[in-house]
This record gives sequence, structure tokens and C-alpha cells, in this order.
Amino acid sequence: MNLTKEQIAEIKNQQSQNNQTKRVTSPELEKILYEAIPALDHGFVRVVDYMGDDTSIVQSARVSYGKGTKQVSTDKGLIKYLMRHWHSTPFEMCEIKYHIKLPIFIARQWIRHRTANVNEYSARYSILDKEFYLPSHENLAAQSKSNRQGRGDTLEGKQAEEVLLLLKSDAERTYDNYETMLNERFDGTTIDENKKGLARELARMNLTLNTYTQWYWKTDLLNLMNFLRLRADSHAQYEIRVYADIMLDTLKKWVPITFEAFMDYRVGGTEVSAKGKLVIQKLIRGEIVDPEQSGLSKREWNELMLSFDLKDNII
Amino acid sequence: MNLTKEQIAEIKNQQSQNNQTKRVTSPELEKILYEAIPALDHGFVRVVDYMGDDTSIVQSARVSYGKGTKQVSTDKGLIKYLMRHWHSTPFEMCEIKYHIKLPIFIARQWIRHRTANVNEYSARYSILDKEFYLPSHENLAAQSKSNRQGRGDTLEGKQAEEVLLLLKSDAERTYDNYETMLNERFDGTTIDENKKGLARELARMNLTLNTYTQWYWKTDLLNLMNFLRLRADSHAQYEIRVYADIMLDTLKKWVPITFEAFMDYRVGGTEVSAKGKLVIQKLIRGEIVDPEQSGLSKREWNELMLSFDLKDNII
Amino acid sequence: MNLTKEQIAEIKNQQSQNNQTKRVTSPELEKILYEAIPALDHGFVRVVDYMGDDTSIVQSARVSYGKGTKQVSTDKGLIKYLMRHWHSTPFEMCEIKYHIKLPIFIARQWIRHRTANVNEYSARYSILDKEFYLPSHENLAAQSKSNRQGRGDTLEGKQAEEVLLLLKSDAERTYDNYETMLNERFDGTTIDENKKGLARELARMNLTLNTYTQWYWKTDLLNLMNFLRLRADSHAQYEIRVYADIMLDTLKKWVPITFEAFMDYRVGGTEVSAKGKLVIQKLIRGEIVDPEQSGLSKREWNELMLSFDLKDNII
Amino acid sequence: MNLTKEQIAEIKNQQSQNNQTKRVTSPELEKILYEAIPALDHGFVRVVDYMGDDTSIVQSARVSYGKGTKQVSTDKGLIKYLMRHWHSTPFEMCEIKYHIKLPIFIARQWIRHRTANVNEYSARYSILDKEFYLPSHENLAAQSKSNRQGRGDTLEGKQAEEVLLLLKSDAERTYDNYETMLNERFDGTTIDENKKGLARELARMNLTLNTYTQWYWKTDLLNLMNFLRLRADSHAQYEIRVYADIMLDTLKKWVPITFEAFMDYRVGGTEVSAKGKLVIQKLIRGEIVDPEQSGLSKREWNELMLSFDLKDNII
Repeated sequence: MNLTKEQIAEIKNQQSQNNQTKRVTSPELEKILYEAIPALDHGFVRVVDYMGDDTSIVQSARVSYGKGTKQVSTDKGLIKYLMRHWHSTPFEMCEIKYHIKLPIFIARQWIRHRTANVNEYSARYSILDKEFYLPSHENLAAQSKSNRQGRGDTLEGKQAEEVLLLLKSDAERTYDNYETMLNERFDGTTIDENKKGLARELARMNLTLNTYTQWYWKTDLLNLMNFLRLRADSHAQYEIRVYADIMLDTLKKWVPITFEAFMDYRVGGTEVSAKGKLVIQKLIRGEIVDPEQSGLSKREWNELMLSFDLKDNII
Repeated sequence: MNLTKEQIAEIKNQQSQNNQTKRVTSPELEKILYEAIPALDHGFVRVVDYMGDDTSIVQSARVSYGKGTKQVSTDKGLIKYLMRHWHSTPFEMCEIKYHIKLPIFIARQWIRHRTANVNEYSARYSILDKEFYLPSHENLAAQSKSNRQGRGDTLEGKQAEEVLLLLKSDAERTYDNYETMLNERFDGTTIDENKKGLARELARMNLTLNTYTQWYWKTDLLNLMNFLRLRADSHAQYEIRVYADIMLDTLKKWVPITFEAFMDYRVGGTEVSAKGKLVIQKLIRGEIVDPEQSGLSKREWNELMLSFDLKDNII
Repeated sequence: MNLTKEQIAEIKNQQSQNNQTKRVTSPELEKILYEAIPALDHGFVRVVDYMGDDTSIVQSARVSYGKGTKQVSTDKGLIKYLMRHWHSTPFEMCEIKYHIKLPIFIARQWIRHRTANVNEYSARYSILDKEFYLPSHENLAAQSKSNRQGRGDTLEGKQAEEVLLLLKSDAERTYDNYETMLNERFDGTTIDENKKGLARELARMNLTLNTYTQWYWKTDLLNLMNFLRLRADSHAQYEIRVYADIMLDTLKKWVPITFEAFMDYRVGGTEVSAKGKLVIQKLIRGEIVDPEQSGLSKREWNELMLSFDLKDNII
Repeated sequence: MNLTKEQIAEIKNQQSQNNQTKRVTSPELEKILYEAIPALDHGFVRVVDYMGDDTSIVQSARVSYGKGTKQVSTDKGLIKYLMRHWHSTPFEMCEIKYHIKLPIFIARQWIRHRTANVNEYSARYSILDKEFYLPSHENLAAQSKSNRQGRGDTLEGKQAEEVLLLLKSDAERTYDNYETMLNERFDGTTIDENKKGLARELARMNLTLNTYTQWYWKTDLLNLMNFLRLRADSHAQYEIRVYADIMLDTLKKWVPITFEAFMDYRVGGTEVSAKGKLVIQKLIRGEIVDPEQSGLSKREWNELMLSFDLKDNII
């Protein structure tokens, strides 16, 4: 990740602020506020604003349930209770805003989460940076044979080199031609004074999907957790998981009690279907269960066995 | 508005906070943070948290439009431009949270704005306060003859007294019976040790719609303006307008530049239909326009004339 | 449930339609289209329109995953897969619209589900019907001692009679006084020609929360299931569960394959936390687990044991 | 636009359906249901399902306003009234679903409208078609000098040829290399049996932004109009306007009365700010207004004059 001089100056400037406020603050998050945390080869994640902390969740819940919440004596106990029972609105009372730099094909995956506010850099107005994502060797995975959306082994040797070369040369060539069509370099210099430039809103179509873009992305804590639950999961594409993992860490700094409950009940937890419950009940009673008679498909059976670490039972 | 001792202590406690933050702050809003601003006879509006200020809107817009926004030199010019051209996402980058006490029939109108986060006091869990809205004499309006959702003259004399008496006695009686059914007073004392109490989630159905409730209500700046545009309007019901007017004032303290643009382009502005434009064009050219030939209905014609202060043209 | 002559005529009229369409239809749902299914003492649920069926979900998924979905050979297999892995967007491709009559205090609980479109009967414009909910004897539950939002035993004997009498007489009196204030009866007749009527938007505040209202409520299949999961649950208030149960039945008629997957994976299923998984794993291995050492709170422990029908382990 | 044999067969099959329904139907829309209406060089718009028609809007409004709407005697009058006064919920009661094929850079602009349901073809699962958008000569516009997001004159002669050649050759080369990396052709044949293929979720990053994608896009009538208002506008990028114009035509077939009101009050209408109103009032009174004294910026002044066809007043 290379920040421009202007970016470095802007971050320094933002971090030098020292304002007084009567609002609640999250001291650990304040420490990394505005910092550009590197992601992939040229991307970053920055927390640029936030509202609320763990106590805000508790406060909202106590407004809702009135004296009814006094039974749950501690903030931690109450937050765990709310998380376990899928109470949603108290977690919506906190808000966070990120500045993120990411490849376009990842941005396209990300934007499917609609419950967030987004301001993306517009290539209709301005020229995109000459930066594109190139996977590192260990992330150059082959298509999985068994899973249509998964990755298999890593490509190796000559084939790996070839792939990287193709990605690099295609991205560079299409970017160069983007500048040619614009008749303008990224730094603003005109290429040929006697020519017009193609409209930016058209020229951008020549860029490849690994070109980096950036956006401000703002969401509430509930929707952030929904996003992280899906995108920090092992089934998520590696390239988005890199961002989700960084954001998980900012979650921990921001609302540590909520983070702990989230890891226990959501990330580390599992769901069991009605039919799956019957299987587990029998296993607990020491009965032998025939997968064929369980009512579960082979795939479901194996997912269930994996969930409870019963590798010997996989068929 | 009477705050309980606990509420007064909590507000004092919140206002005594003095935290350091690197986030942007809104100094004028900080001054009234947590303060309970009276609304109607027992209600209030409190700003309890916020995120961002006018500069946050500008910053997001500049991320979107990149160097493209440098042409608009000032923050004020840019915010006016964004407002005039209905750019929405930069205004979504600011967030505010209110604590509001309001009568249930107003809460039911309010909740129709779905793009907000809400935590309402739950009468399933806890007993509602013995407080109900009674209109002041000057707000005791008769049904409008011409407008099915409007108010006409004020009720006067004996009839006004009767109405107020009915409202008061019905609210008090139903509340007393609510306590009787619960077998519990609001202060928590049991009425008859030998009796059970009806479940709270059932007993609440006996209360009248002017009973006060309270909630935390959090929304972004764009949706706040959408709310205020409708609810601070002269066609809105007086009782919700009281709240909207107070919130307009908090908007002014929070984001003064945006407030000014909002008043000019939204609140003070008007819309003109395609057919209406033709009428105005003719009037500017000094032509006489026959309402019957204008393509506008009588109602549309009059609304248009009123918009441009042409009272003589009303038919 | 008593329908007015006008309502009966309108339903007959709607049901007599016989249109040709190239759209997919759901034959079982067509059979009950427009029918007023009774709910509580005066309420009803009517399906008044819908879009899509089980095949629409499959079709959308196949557009998303392209040839990738050909591996899953049957529609049923694909829908089960989508449900199990929390794929959400294919279920958003179906839409349903209900006409519902329900008590106001239930409408207030219901409206918290924001991801739906609502048109409610407006008491600003029109006079509400003289109909209010009165629980049947077996639903007249006492407040639970252990659960602040729950119900305990049923009230009995004289106390039950007293409660019902209070509910009935308060609702009737406040309604009568509502008419008095309006100076108008529900049937439109003026009470006293020499008096004005209070504005409807004000008079409505005198009504009790068990007064019936009605609305059109439209949502997509995903959000309908989210609603039903919470509201058809045994922890939901009985009065909203009555509606949810009826709607569950319409779900079964509309999208029978999705219904079956929903019952297996959502309604009949359970969640297990990370700590809970460790406990279950030990139990399967035949180990004895000390609740105190499990890392679970007493409450969590008991919830987990109940989920897997291990009543002897409850502490 | 070339449809594959499978697509043609599927469309024929869908159009041959002839189902009975008690739901309302929109006869004009039924006529074009499922039809692939060409857009740009390889794209299309297909209406694949819908719910409701003009009468559904009226019906919902009459539920809301009860007897209060009887004053407005005709459906047309009521729909115009609702549109003029920005009533939103009745228009949410209708729903439509499109199948759309479009270039990725347009899809990225489109997806910013979040209030819709989307199922996009996934290049994680399946291989994208070898189809990319190439502008026709007359749409090969130069960057506007005055407007950072606008188009100026058309590129001509040799430069136009060069640009088209670059777009075409870059798209083809990157697509060929995409296949090479996948070690698989679009038709499913393996290129080199001795090689692995790069994971699809990675290989896709090599494609250019003019590659076509496709999705199911479902929204309600209100949000469709919000989309069309922005995207069928002359300031919208030509390539998205092509789609919006086709969809405007489907709107006209679906809900002809609403369409007419939409064109009058939204598309053909204008907004006037508070300051702008004062200017227009003076012009109507025959007064001369000095732009400098008007309180409007030069830009605002000119926008206002253009709105009312006062070209002589432009400064």
C-alpha cells in the first residue's frame, strides 16, 4: 500500500484533531482512527467516524424494556442475552463509517449488502488510479473440482507465472489505453493537444475488474455484524475476507463486549435443523444412527457431523 | 414536562461528560446535548448522540467526485449544489439519535417513516407512565368542513370544556383500571396481595391513544430531512409539527450550512408540473390564462397560484 | 368476525374474477384469494395479491449461479440448499399482499418489522369502526412471575369477570365519547346540528388500544419468513401468533416446497453457540459435563438442554 | 442482440403459458411479457413478472383514507392527487420484476439504487459470456469541457476508429486470456488436459468493465419511478438512459394512468427554490429582476430561466 503525499498529510491532519465532546467515546477505536490499515496489495481500511459504544446498546435496551431489564444485572449479561435471542434494534443504535480502497470485482460483491450508505469514487467525474490487484503466489488458487464457487490447490511453477503475467500485462495495457482514449494521463497532463479526449464515463469501460476503487461505507452495528458473519466466513472469497478480518479487529476495539458475544453466538456457533436435532439427540443417548434413515441428505449429514467435530461419522 | 428525579440525575450525569475525541464535533449541538426540550404537555425531545457535521458531507462528496469537485470552491457552494440536484448519498453520511417522549397516536404516525432505527419503551415488559396528552384550548380544533384531514375553527366555551373533561376523565379512568387489572400501581406496589395481576402485554390494551410513550429514534441526515419536510409542513398534524419544529432547530445547530440549503430548496421551495410550467411561462409573458383552458384542475390551479402568491387569480 | 354487506359484496366481486395471465400462478393460493380468514374476535387475514411461486425462487437462483446450479438436480433440493445456507436474494423474488384487520396494540408490535409496505386505515380522515378486542376466558393470562414479558396461569372466576367487564366498559365508554366529541355517529349521522365536531385527528386519541384497525401489508417472501419466524414462535404474544399461524398456512399454500424447508431449517431448528457446541460434543462422547464448568450461564445451559430434549439435565 | 437457442426456447415456453387467475392483470403488459427488448448492442430488458395495476393503487389509498377518498370521484383524479402530494405508500403496492442484460459499468451505476431486489449472474460460479459493449459511432462522445460528468461533441474520423479499435481489441484479448487462465472455453471445453484452471472467482478480475452481465431486478412502483426519474433524465449517462427509456415504455403499458401523472408531475415538472419563487413572482408582475440582486448564483439563475423557457434571460 502506497499512500500519496496528499493522503498522508490528510491522515496526519485528521489524527491531530483533539476535540472535546459530551458523547460517549471508544478509547481503543480512537487510537486507530483515520489510520490506513493495509489490505491486499494496494488496498486499505480506515475507520473515519463512529457513534456509540457497548453502553449505547445497553442504554437502548433499557429504554425498551424499562424496569424489566434490571434483572439482568450487568452490561455484559444483557448484551449476551440480546445477541442470543436475536434482538436486533439495540445493535442498530451504533454506527460506524469506513474509508475503503478495494478492487472493483470485490466492490461488486460487497455492494450486494444493501443496508449501508455508500459514496464511491466516481469514474464519470475523475480518472481512476493506476493500481490493480495482483494475487500473491499463495493465493493463486485453482478452481475446486468439488465446489463450483470454491478454490482448490494453488497453481504452481510456470503456470502460476503465466497467469500473473497475463493479469499484470492486461491490466497495464488496458490502463494505458484508457489514458490514450482520455487523451490525458492520470497526473492531469494532456497527451496530444490536438486531440479531444473520450468522455470519462465511456473510457472507464476499458478498465479491468481488478482496478482499485475506493468508497466511504457507513453502516450500523447490526448490519456490520451481518456483513462480517458472511464475509469473514471461511466460505467467503479470500479477497473479501481480508477486509472482513481487518474490520473484525476494528469491531473488537470499538465494542469489545458485543464482539465477544458475536464470536460465541454467531461466528463460532452453528444452526441445527429440526431433523438434525433428532440425530444429535440420538447420538447423545448413545444410539447408532443410520445416515440413510436420518432424513438428511448426504451433504446435510456431513455438514452436521463436521459442525460437532464428528469426523468419523462422515460418509 | 416533569422529569423524574432519576431522569434529571441521568441527564446531569451525561452532560457532565468531557471526553477527548479525534472525531469531528458540532459545537452548537454539543451545547444542548442530552437536554430535554419540552414538547406538548408532557413530552420532550433530546439529542443523545450524533456523528458528522457539514464537513462530513463535503468530504464524502469529494471522495465520490474526486478532483471533479474542486471546481466548486466552497463547502457552502458544494452543499447547495448537492441539495439542488438531489444528490442523496453524501447526506446519508451523518447520523443523529434522539430520545423522544410522545403520545401514542403521534408515535403511530411517526413510525410510518421506516428508514430509521427505533427502540421503544415496551409495555409488554414494563408499566407505562400515568401521563396523557390533553390539548390546550387553542389547539382544540373542530373538523374542517372542506378538508377531510384538516382542522377548522377552535371549539369554544362549554363544548371545549366538555371535550377536555371527557378526554381527561377517560384517560384517567382507563389508566386506573389498567392498574387494577395489573393489580399493581405504577410505583410498583401491589394492590391486593391475594390476587394475581393480568399480564402486562394484555392490560396495556386498556390505555387510550393519548398515553405517552418514549423511544430512541436514530436516522441519517437525508432521512431526517425527508421526515422534517413532511412533518414540519403546515399540512402536518399540529401535534407532530411541534416535535418537527424542535428538531428543525437541532438541525440548524448540527449542520448550519445544510440547514440553510434545506430551507431554501426544500421547505421554502415548490414543485411545478409540466402543465403548470406552461401556465407560469404565459403569465411571465403577460398573457392572460384561462384556468379552464390550462389543463389544470381547479384544485391544481389554486395550488399553483398560491405557490406564487397570486391570490387574485384563485378561482 | 362480522363483515359488512359492502365487504361481503366486494369479496364476492373480487373472487368472481377470472383473468388470463402468462404469469406463474399458485393454484392452492388462488383458491383462498380474497377470502377473509377470521382472527381473534373481530379481525381477519386476507391474501389479496401475490407474485411468483416456488419455481420463481429456483429461476432466480439459476440466473445467479448459471450452469453452476445444474448439479443440484431438483427444485426441492435447490430450495433446501438455499435455505440451509442462508441465501437470501432468491427468496426476495416473490411478493405477497395481505389485507389485515387487527387490534391497534398488535399493529404497533407488527409495524416494527420495517421491511414491508403498509397502507393503514387513517383515523385522521375517517371514523374507526366500533370494534375492540376482548380476550376469551382461556386467554386471560396472569403476568408470569419468572418472565417479565410472559404469561402465567389463566385468571379465573370473579377476577376474570371483573377484568373482562373493565375492558368492555372502558372500550365502549371511550368509543361513545369519541362519537360525542366528533358530534357524529359511526354511521355518519350528526348528533347535534347546533354543535361543531372535534377534528378527527384529535378525537381518535380517546380510543383504547384494543380498538381494531386495518391495513394492506405487502412484503417479499424472505421478509415474510423473518416475520413468521419471530411471530409464530411460542415466545411471541398470543394475539400476534394467531395472525402468524394463519399466515403460515397461506405460506404453505403459496410455496409448499419453501414452506417445508422453512419449517425444517428455521422454525424447527435451533442455534448452538461456540461454547454450546463443545458441551454437545462431550455429551455425544458420553462424557459428563458439569454445567458450572461449561462456560454457559445457568440460563444458557437450560436453553441448550431444552433444545436437545435433555430435560433431566436441566438445573 | 443475439439470443441463444436455449434463451429463445425458454422465452417461447414462458410466453405459451395461459393460466387462470383471480388477480388483477394488466392486459397491455401481458402482451410483451417475457419478450427480450433489445438495449445497446447486446443487452436486453425483459418484464418477467408483475403484481397489481392502476386499480391496486386506488384500492390501497381507499383503505387508508376510508370514506375520506370518496370526494375524489375518479381513479385518475385520485392517482393524480396522490402523485402531486407525494403520497408514497399506495404506489408501493405494485411490484415488477425485470430480467436485464447490461454492461458491468452500467450495472455498477444501477446498483446504487438500493431499494430493489437483485439476483445477478455470478462469475464466481459460472463463466461469463463473450460479449462486451462497444458504443456506436454517434455515441462516441468527447469529454465535455464545461461539465465534469458530461459529454461534448462526438469523436470523429481517425480518432473514433482508434478508440473503437482499442475498446474492441482490449476486450477480446482480456477475454481470451480469461479463458486461458480458466483453462476452459466458454462452451465448456477444456483447453489443456494437463493443466489446472485458475479459480473462476479470480479469473474474472481480468475482464473489462464493458463485459455484459445479467440480473433479475425487482422493485415496487414507487422505487421504479424514483429510478426512472433519475435515469431517464437527460443528465443521466446515455448507456443507462437506453434502459430507462425502455422501462418507461413498460411503465406506460403496465399502469397507464400512473404513467401520465408521473410524466406531468415528475419528469416534465420542475422545482423552484424559495429564492427562485420570489424571482418568478416579480417576473409575473412585469418587474425587471437583476440576477445579481436575486440571491441566486449564476448557475441557479440560468437553471431557473431554462426551466421556464426564458432563454433571453440567461446570463
